[in-house]
Amino acid sequence: MLDMTNDYAQNMAIFNRAGRQTVDELFAKHGITLEQIAKITVDLQQRFLPNISVEKVVPVINNMLNKDEVQDVIILGFTLDDLAERDLLPEPLLTKVRRDEGSFGIDELLVSGIYSLYGTISVTNFGYADRIKSGLIGEIDAKGKASFDVSTTFQDDIIGALATGACGYFAHNPQTLVE
Amino acid sequence: MLDMTNDYAQNMAIFNRAGRQTVDELFAKHGITLEQIAKITVDLQQRFLPNISVEKVVPVINNMLNKDEVQDVIILGFTLDDLAERDLLPEPLLTKVRRDEGSFGIDELLVSGIYSLYGTISVTNFGYADRIKSGLIGEIDAKGKASFDVSTTFQDDIIGALATGACGYFAHNPQTLVE
Amino acid sequence: MLDMTNDYAQNMAIFNRAGRQTVDELFAKHGITLEQIAKITVDLQQRFLPNISVEKVVPVINNMLNKDEVQDVIILGFTLDDLAERDLLPEPLLTKVRRDEGSFGIDELLVSGIYSLYGTISVTNFGYADRIKSGLIGEIDAKGKASFDVSTTFQDDIIGALATGACGYFAHNPQTLVE
Amino acid sequence: MLDMTNDYAQNMAIFNRAGRQTVDELFAKHGITLEQIAKITVDLQQRFLPNISVEKVVPVINNMLNKDEVQDVIILGFTLDDLAERDLLPEPLLTKVRRDEGSFGIDELLVSGIYSLYGTISVTNFGYADRIKSGLIGEIDAKGKASFDVSTTFQDDIIGALATGACGYFAHNPQTLVE
Repeated sequence: MLDMTNDYAQNMAIFNRAGRQTVDELFAKHGITLEQIAKITVDLQQRFLPNISVEKVVPVINNMLNKDEVQDVIILGFTLDDLAERDLLPEPLLTKVRRDEGSFGIDELLVSGIYSLYGTISVTNFGYADRIKSGLIGEIDAKGKASFDVSTTFQDDIIGALATGACGYFAHNPQTLVE
Repeated sequence: MLDMTNDYAQNMAIFNRAGRQTVDELFAKHGITLEQIAKITVDLQQRFLPNISVEKVVPVINNMLNKDEVQDVIILGFTLDDLAERDLLPEPLLTKVRRDEGSFGIDELLVSGIYSLYGTISVTNFGYADRIKSGLIGEIDAKGKASFDVSTTFQDDIIGALATGACGYFAHNPQTLVE
Repeated sequence: MLDMTNDYAQNMAIFNRAGRQTVDELFAKHGITLEQIAKITVDLQQRFLPNISVEKVVPVINNMLNKDEVQDVIILGFTLDDLAERDLLPEPLLTKVRRDEGSFGIDELLVSGIYSLYGTISVTNFGYADRIKSGLIGEIDAKGKASFDVSTTFQDDIIGALATGACGYFAHNPQTLVE
Repeated sequence: MLDMTNDYAQNMAIFNRAGRQTVDELFAKHGITLEQIAKITVDLQQRFLPNISVEKVVPVINNMLNKDEVQDVIILGFTLDDLAERDLLPEPLLTKVRRDEGSFGIDELLVSGIYSLYGTISVTNFGYADRIKSGLIGEIDAKGKASFDVSTTFQDDIIGALATGACGYFAHNPQTLVE
């Protein structure tokens, strides 16, 4: 357990630093870069916002990773994939996560906690990117499908939610692309 | 105003009959059939559920239209498109609805009240169908885009939400396709 | 219709200024002040965040009103109450809005577009404030209940969503109360 | 892993039986009965629906527990509380779950997957019941607060979501109380 104080604001700062550190470790371990996520955002938004670029999206993704709501979803999702790989979930949860079962909706539900922070238009982008398996989403999904020992059921949706949350951010704050 | 009683259950039955009648009138007026909506469901689910057919989906759509939560969303959505066509919404709502503005998310939010009744997996299907403008969704969207005097901003999302709600229903109740 | 340009960012700025102006006019017309909304936030969060005050909450509410997702929900909600008062909604929507019917959930759905921008913990505060009719929420609700000619079905939920969105903001950003 | 077939409908039946069995075991282990959950529903709805009774609510809760979306949320929630008690979650997730931290919103997000199946009006009941800690919700919450070795962070929200999902069911289907 983390060392807590009696001060709410101090505790939140402790959570936030620990959260960002765990997220950075998880991304490093799985070889995920902010540039890869930003690339999905660019691919999705380019036809609406011609000025968008990986360089402009990376700082937005970086800010998202500093939010504790976002950190919680990412850490929980990667943890669940990891527990599934180690057979540490009860049935039928284990089989559903390992198979990335089509009727299993906890992954979609959980990551809505990321993109909903950026408005309801993100729903459409998320659903679309998830289905066409845009860029890194598809690579991660393929890793999970290639071997039953690897579970990426939550990981691909997390990447998709970060990329489409950033789409929502730019759709509502397009002036940040001009400045 | 409708004639109400002092009995909650009786009032709900009155609302429900009135709601279904208004929905049927709106669909008739806009030339929308349950078969067209079911066709989208079939197109989206066919590769997962080979037994699916328009004949099997139509009764599910029909049952959806009997739910008062679904009726309320449909009636409100068509009303907003109609008010927009008659210039009866305040700005900037009027311009956003008439232009089906990309940053406007009330349509996505409103219709989540339909497909969320059928589980969180519907989010992905909805987003995908909305973006590729599957079948009738695309036809309705094109009508709205063809003329500034016609607004279909909410209509296409309503059709998409009904079709993908049915996807969620069958994904969770596949035995109804076998029986 | 508003005068639009060919530039997405410029159009968003036009929408945003028009949206804020309409919100300010609606609040002025209904005698709603940011201080009254902030008072609800203070009442709900005081026991968790002793430093909170109306003065510190008002700028947060003010920022919320500059977001176009928030403006759209507010303008649509007040418009629906107004249309209901003037008998301009189809049945059974008209009767449900005028009666603030318990089974009618479009108001809750619509305002989730406000507080969801500030994380999922806002759900609990919203539900609680809505049910105990905290401060201004109760005053507005009472106005609607006092006369069938006045509809405040959406208004009280909008006020509740703004107040509890601010709760979410401070729960996730408590350092802003210290600085 | 469960033994799977090549048939989607058969697999869903296998998941469903396994899911219900795990839910029943978890409830038995934690001494939770359907009657206790139904009691919360009755307390919340009594003033609107005078005919409601524990006997009439129990079968509705029972049906909810047969839905695989509901089973998945319950099993995951109890699993997370259990993993927290055994120090098997990464930081800061572990500390947040163990402390039932106020800023932690994954519990609220997860259980929205239960009550959202019964319409958007359930949001208000859920938030209210969660905050006043109605009946069993309060008992479970108190267990978690009494000892740092016991985590009930997800459990109380699950019970609240089941009870308020049933509220939504009866609000939309009041005739089932008369028949």
